Amino acid sequence: MLNKALRLVRVYHDLSQVDAAERLGLSKSYVSEIEKGDKNVSMATLQKYSDAFDIPMSSLLLFAEKVEGAGKAENVRVFVADKAVKMLDWVSTISDYRSAER
Amino acid sequence: MLNKALRLVRVYHDLSQVDAAERLGLSKSYVSEIEKGDKNVSMATLQKYSDAFDIPMSSLLLFAEKVEGAGKAENVRVFVADKAVKMLDWVSTISDYRSAER
Repeated sequence: MLNKALRLVRVYHDLSQVDAAERLGLSKSYVSEIEKGDKNVSMATLQKYSDAFDIPMSSLLLFAEKVEGAGKAENVRVFVADKAVKMLDWVSTISDYRSAER
Repeated sequence: MLNKALRLVRVYHDLSQVDAAERLGLSKSYVSEIEKGDKNVSMATLQKYSDAFDIPMSSLLLFAEKVEGAGKAENVRVFVADKAVKMLDWVSTISDYRSAER
């Protein structure tokens, strides 16, 4: 799924595999293998796509998770990452608490 | 950053490192090393956290990316993953186009 998504990221940016490989600092054959699903995508590779295409790693994964459902009626415009938000609220709470302690 | 975030995910779920390790199918020492930042987090490990804590991999990364900013005034309730959404719209467009061709 992530492999297919990274192919779409490249095509969306109107790049050939050769051009994308150059931008990513990877070999053309590596990009080809990623897109075919012959190579697993590592965190380091995901980071390279993130840097090269100026898109957060979380958004790349979100795109990969959602891309199969695209074209259906679901609202893709706003994502509420529910548990992530709850945890961020929690971190904010404990941060306030720690600040108050000082 | 991701390492620290995974520690917070565990604490948020009120688990000791031992309990978390068991739930994750990892050794306690591995969890400890991850949390200290001594081990890089692989895709496979991120997948384990995703499964064990029932949270998409993209949300775990989003949490990691945003957690440093938590406690600030920014609105963390709704994330618009801008480029991901544009790409999903695009995928939806080409999917429609391909359907129409048939």
